[in-house]
Amino acid sequence: MSLSKRLAAELFGTFWLVLGGCGSAVLAASFAGPEHGLGIGFVGVSLAFGLTVLTMAYAIGHVSGCHLNPAVSIGLATAGRFPLRDVVPYIVAQLAGAILGAFVLSLIASGKPGFDLVASGFASNGYGERSPGHYSMAAAFICEAVLTGFFLFVILGATDKRAPAGFAPIAIGLCLTLIHLISIPVTNTSVNPARSTGPALFVGGAAVDQLWLFWLAPVIGAIVAGIVYPLVAGHAQDKPLRASSATA
Amino acid sequence: MSLSKRLAAELFGTFWLVLGGCGSAVLAASFAGPEHGLGIGFVGVSLAFGLTVLTMAYAIGHVSGCHLNPAVSIGLATAGRFPLRDVVPYIVAQLAGAILGAFVLSLIASGKPGFDLVASGFASNGYGERSPGHYSMAAAFICEAVLTGFFLFVILGATDKRAPAGFAPIAIGLCLTLIHLISIPVTNTSVNPARSTGPALFVGGAAVDQLWLFWLAPVIGAIVAGIVYPLVAGHAQDKPLRASSATA
Amino acid sequence: MSLSKRLAAELFGTFWLVLGGCGSAVLAASFAGPEHGLGIGFVGVSLAFGLTVLTMAYAIGHVSGCHLNPAVSIGLATAGRFPLRDVVPYIVAQLAGAILGAFVLSLIASGKPGFDLVASGFASNGYGERSPGHYSMAAAFICEAVLTGFFLFVILGATDKRAPAGFAPIAIGLCLTLIHLISIPVTNTSVNPARSTGPALFVGGAAVDQLWLFWLAPVIGAIVAGIVYPLVAGHAQDKPLRASSATA
Amino acid sequence: MSLSKRLAAELFGTFWLVLGGCGSAVLAASFAGPEHGLGIGFVGVSLAFGLTVLTMAYAIGHVSGCHLNPAVSIGLATAGRFPLRDVVPYIVAQLAGAILGAFVLSLIASGKPGFDLVASGFASNGYGERSPGHYSMAAAFICEAVLTGFFLFVILGATDKRAPAGFAPIAIGLCLTLIHLISIPVTNTSVNPARSTGPALFVGGAAVDQLWLFWLAPVIGAIVAGIVYPLVAGHAQDKPLRASSATA
Repeated sequence: MSLSKRLAAELFGTFWLVLGGCGSAVLAASFAGPEHGLGIGFVGVSLAFGLTVLTMAYAIGHVSGCHLNPAVSIGLATAGRFPLRDVVPYIVAQLAGAILGAFVLSLIASGKPGFDLVASGFASNGYGERSPGHYSMAAAFICEAVLTGFFLFVILGATDKRAPAGFAPIAIGLCLTLIHLISIPVTNTSVNPARSTGPALFVGGAAVDQLWLFWLAPVIGAIVAGIVYPLVAGHAQDKPLRASSATA
Repeated sequence: MSLSKRLAAELFGTFWLVLGGCGSAVLAASFAGPEHGLGIGFVGVSLAFGLTVLTMAYAIGHVSGCHLNPAVSIGLATAGRFPLRDVVPYIVAQLAGAILGAFVLSLIASGKPGFDLVASGFASNGYGERSPGHYSMAAAFICEAVLTGFFLFVILGATDKRAPAGFAPIAIGLCLTLIHLISIPVTNTSVNPARSTGPALFVGGAAVDQLWLFWLAPVIGAIVAGIVYPLVAGHAQDKPLRASSATA
Repeated sequence: MSLSKRLAAELFGTFWLVLGGCGSAVLAASFAGPEHGLGIGFVGVSLAFGLTVLTMAYAIGHVSGCHLNPAVSIGLATAGRFPLRDVVPYIVAQLAGAILGAFVLSLIASGKPGFDLVASGFASNGYGERSPGHYSMAAAFICEAVLTGFFLFVILGATDKRAPAGFAPIAIGLCLTLIHLISIPVTNTSVNPARSTGPALFVGGAAVDQLWLFWLAPVIGAIVAGIVYPLVAGHAQDKPLRASSATA
Repeated sequence: MSLSKRLAAELFGTFWLVLGGCGSAVLAASFAGPEHGLGIGFVGVSLAFGLTVLTMAYAIGHVSGCHLNPAVSIGLATAGRFPLRDVVPYIVAQLAGAILGAFVLSLIASGKPGFDLVASGFASNGYGERSPGHYSMAAAFICEAVLTGFFLFVILGATDKRAPAGFAPIAIGLCLTLIHLISIPVTNTSVNPARSTGPALFVGGAAVDQLWLFWLAPVIGAIVAGIVYPLVAGHAQDKPLRASSATA
């Protein structure tokens, strides 16, 4: 598969992750129209984020490996399961997709009378005053680093050639659902610097000022997992490259 | 498999989609009987719509490909994965199933004292005043076109012969769940002209006047996806016809 | 596999269906302890019923076919996929399991101060005054017959040898979840005469008087589906018997 | 696979189970920030516990069998599917993981202004006054023993070599979700002595005094299931050892 096709797939996939995940949060989480209480809440948003990955992993796993996340590309490269030279192009495609996804979401969301993008938070991530539960910067950092680390651990394990074939998208997608079930109150859940960057650019201000944490913590967690998984599980590296990436 | 059997399967399947998806919305979404707050809300309705497709895809995927949706038949035909000559018969069968499903749902729903079909909305789709969140026509159009496009993209990818076999019904059904998690507040979620037509015919009035959008936007999205997917993923067209349709 | 082992499996499985499905409804649906609003509602009960079948189908599908439901045994026999001579023994085992499951549930539930089994309804099924939404007898009958018919249609399709192998428990379990998402407000959802009988015997009175509907309607629906499915899908009957039952 | 690698996998996995399951309960169950009612409730906590097992089973099933639970190791050993000599090392690793998971969770949770670990309960298990619904000790004991027994029954069945390959993590993970949907109100749900021990050590006092029940009841249930399953299902013991453990 040519690099341009793989990058197009990453762009479409990350677009879908942001449109679907952040979209469910912005449009439906606390819907309180004529019939109060029908909104999807954090359970619905958690499902939505996970299902963007599950669906795309079956749709484009055979094209690009379906990373949709700079931390995933970096973690896989750390573990020797993704070529270093493709990391930067993948990240650029993921960022483009995330920003375009946030843009289309802003078009839809502004179709509601009275919608105020900045005041809504637009599903951006945050800590301290910008954390849904006002969690401290330190708690947010630990949370994002640890959860991203386990996310990569699950990705590396579920795509190991010794794991049952075909199930990785289910394990990985539902792992992202699980991560959101735990941590939306802490940081609105990132574990994905591209997902954080898209909405933050539209919100601006403090959302952008806090972006550094949602790059640094996930990447550290991903690198640690990329080192630890092979130590725990031993080596199984003769799987073909793409098959050993996120959606083998 | 004879065309008549395939059409019967599409009719039964679309009946199920409308009875199950719209039925969960009409009967259970905001249930507030003796114990207030037990209703299934938008999360439950989203699950129900997705599970109608997941279950039918395993039940009749080997018969008709389980489209259950004119936009799916059109999108697959655009991508060269479904014969053009079968598109119109499939759509007729899907419409018949959707109308019959809405009819049986009306029988059950009217068994509740005080049920008013028209006032309830009967799970019909709408924009502007008829949108649950009063989203504008433009927002509704963008939302339906983009979400249907990604729905087809996922269908085309998950039934690609390079994707893991057997998992397509999970990916496609849960993709419909995801789409509902995002967009019920915007349009009550269609992405399926047959699903929109069934209930609208029973509600009449403005529900019918707005039907055009729930045909036009999904079909445009589906055609675009049918063109884009092969460009992104390359060609894998030597799969047998039925196996390459929605539930290979 | 000897008949006695198969009957033991059906007994354990139906015990699990009643303990898990009715148990979630009785113990957790409207939990409003110190923190009001944490209860699982109809979404949680729907998931629980479906997961009892999904989990048991993987656990004992290879033993008994995992029917857990007289309507399933009758529908499969109608379609020629289960031997007629085993129908009555299976139903007896299912009833025994359902009654024992309801008994153990009553032990646990009565451990809560102030629990009143009869006043709680104990997850029994009902119509008219005993329907959660006060749906009429006619609506309840149509609802139970149609939903059981589609349940069998999905079971027959998902275990057809042309459907992807191994996925039937997912399709069938989540079909039961879907059915509950639609119809808890109508009848508290049966589609399973054994599941209805267990709790009703503990509640007594009107719950027992109404039991006839939860035998008759599901069985009619199952027989119709057992006739219709082969007409729609054609024949695929050379699959070995047990493999063609509910959890092939 | 060396024993040290398998123990490391059990430690990481049980860490994940406690961080994810108890974490979702502590951080997100009753979240009532600016937008009241978005918390994940018992449905979300049930999903989270199940998904910790589903995800880890795909990630490390091929390393250690992914027990993550002393009752699972003991039940598998009782059924002759896990070597007796490995039971104690596995339990030690599971306890270490559970305690570390609870420790990291305490770091994150204390990042919220005003968080009081002991007053919150910290997702510890309990009966009587410490039961969410104030269920008696006897009800709690029956509930934990019976549910753990069925949990092991499902594990033994889903990993039987006659069950469809690759699906066991779905069946087992969603079985844990089901168990939580039933029993959070009764005991906050254990069925896992390691999961009970981790948080209890941080809460101290009555939480520790009641720990005995959450060791004794699950272990009794697991041993009974380890004896009963082979009687019901017959023998299928020529599967290689690790493949016959929880995530074959």
